[in-house]
Amino acid sequence: MNKVDLVIIGAGPAGLTSAIYASRSGYKTIVIEKSAPGGKMNNTHKIDNYPGLEGKEGWEFSMSFSAQAKNFGAKIIGGDVVEIKNLDSKDSKIVVLKNDIEYMCKTIIIATGLKPKKLEVVGYDKYFGKGISTCVVCDGAFYKGKDIAIIGGGNSAIEESLFVSDLVNKIYIINKFSEFNAEQITLNKLKGLKNIDFFYNTNVIKILGKNDKVSSIKIKNVNTKKEKEINISGIFTYIGWNAENFFIKDKEMLDKNGLLIIDKENMQTKYKGVFAAGDIVSKQFKQVTIATSEGTKSALEAVKYMNNL
Amino acid sequence: MNKVDLVIIGAGPAGLTSAIYASRSGYKTIVIEKSAPGGKMNNTHKIDNYPGLEGKEGWEFSMSFSAQAKNFGAKIIGGDVVEIKNLDSKDSKIVVLKNDIEYMCKTIIIATGLKPKKLEVVGYDKYFGKGISTCVVCDGAFYKGKDIAIIGGGNSAIEESLFVSDLVNKIYIINKFSEFNAEQITLNKLKGLKNIDFFYNTNVIKILGKNDKVSSIKIKNVNTKKEKEINISGIFTYIGWNAENFFIKDKEMLDKNGLLIIDKENMQTKYKGVFAAGDIVSKQFKQVTIATSEGTKSALEAVKYMNNL
Repeated sequence: MNKVDLVIIGAGPAGLTSAIYASRSGYKTIVIEKSAPGGKMNNTHKIDNYPGLEGKEGWEFSMSFSAQAKNFGAKIIGGDVVEIKNLDSKDSKIVVLKNDIEYMCKTIIIATGLKPKKLEVVGYDKYFGKGISTCVVCDGAFYKGKDIAIIGGGNSAIEESLFVSDLVNKIYIINKFSEFNAEQITLNKLKGLKNIDFFYNTNVIKILGKNDKVSSIKIKNVNTKKEKEINISGIFTYIGWNAENFFIKDKEMLDKNGLLIIDKENMQTKYKGVFAAGDIVSKQFKQVTIATSEGTKSALEAVKYMNNL
Repeated sequence: MNKVDLVIIGAGPAGLTSAIYASRSGYKTIVIEKSAPGGKMNNTHKIDNYPGLEGKEGWEFSMSFSAQAKNFGAKIIGGDVVEIKNLDSKDSKIVVLKNDIEYMCKTIIIATGLKPKKLEVVGYDKYFGKGISTCVVCDGAFYKGKDIAIIGGGNSAIEESLFVSDLVNKIYIINKFSEFNAEQITLNKLKGLKNIDFFYNTNVIKILGKNDKVSSIKIKNVNTKKEKEINISGIFTYIGWNAENFFIKDKEMLDKNGLLIIDKENMQTKYKGVFAAGDIVSKQFKQVTIATSEGTKSALEAVKYMNNL
């Protein structure tokens, strides 16, 4: 069996930051990632609001964070974690990969994140990251003075619409239900604005593009069956997430949304030496800055745990 | 009177991140700073653990964060805040500068930070940032295999010594008191290590250098009056901080250490629309990543507050 000090599961901004901090502290650290290192940063066109790296592409962030972790000695390996075992053990926890490779370690940081649910329509995969985004706070500013569509019927769709309402020219909110499951006060505020059009009982049926960018959206009312094509430059989907938690057998570690329950003071799960960071932990704002902060804290707590072994 | 949407007090990493987020959201934002923008980053030789900007100098961070805030429209002005008034007001709070200039604003973010107490000895000012640091987690890794001194008698001195004990060759812990005011378990752990020398009842009396870098430290036992010079490459001081809170008249906003009391869920002080971020808020780890995360959250909360006005 392979032995290391710390296994980090997931190489998004949280996991890679943990890797930078832990390996820089001298601990043997590996990061296990099932796709390309970088996490959701890889699906982001440009990241403008991360201090110090203005206007770099998402993939450049991924490369730069990964290189930095490697420079301090962390190893980033491809692999699909299927189970974590011996979590009660002080210094011999086990992380099992799909191909039966096992890593024994003193500490684990779970930073697997969330996967946005996909809109199952033609054009979604083609234009994701080219006009389609899952984060208004991140990408809204790229649509200053333009028209956008926001897809969803919950609080996020409403709050994020309000967030960007001053900046864009017009927002079409497409809700497949007959009403919004959102805070009334925010909804009322939004309804008072002139540049918002609401669609209810309405599905997106196609996303169209020009020159490799989103140009319009086709929608259909489920009652009247009437279709409509609207010209927009950007689409933001708020249709939910799937937590990447399949390898966690102890369901007591998870809240009702499948997110990791931690003590926010020290980022620790119910097991000592097992920490979590990033979007797999419940939070209001999903931002790279916030993920790196949680990656920092969980790594420093893991280092403290190992120093005291 | 000048009118803006948001006044940020302090241009360290937290304040500048708030400025990036708030101005990018379209709100008129000013940052007031009494010395050079960048805060404690300016006193840091190299910052290696901030993801994406490996190995840049502290001042390069300051320049880059500031430029980014300005690009989105934030104004950074020099000024000494002497009072904040009308904090109960929904949208007409007032920030007063030394020269009687006043800014009326809807929201305030306090990000003034902490000032490390200075060691009042010859050589401290000359070599600060050139071998003298106030943060082992930040700068310890630059002393791999070398000898360092850690000055202090509290928990921080002890915890940070343990943090870096595997990495450096030798640590001299210089405590001016006869014992440590620290957790016994951590202290015992440290006492069990071979590469730690403890000095009690001992003052630092001089810091010496060669080629513009720290090279040794002169200490003196207050009882025996015996002096000793020790060759070291780095000095870390843990002798306390002063909170930059002089402009806050309502002492109920502060905890016993002079730090801002906030609701950590939304970064808000006891006044609605008045937020705080960075080292002026109580925290375990003082890191740029953590400051930028708090700057992000406080700005997004301020934006939410203003959207709902």
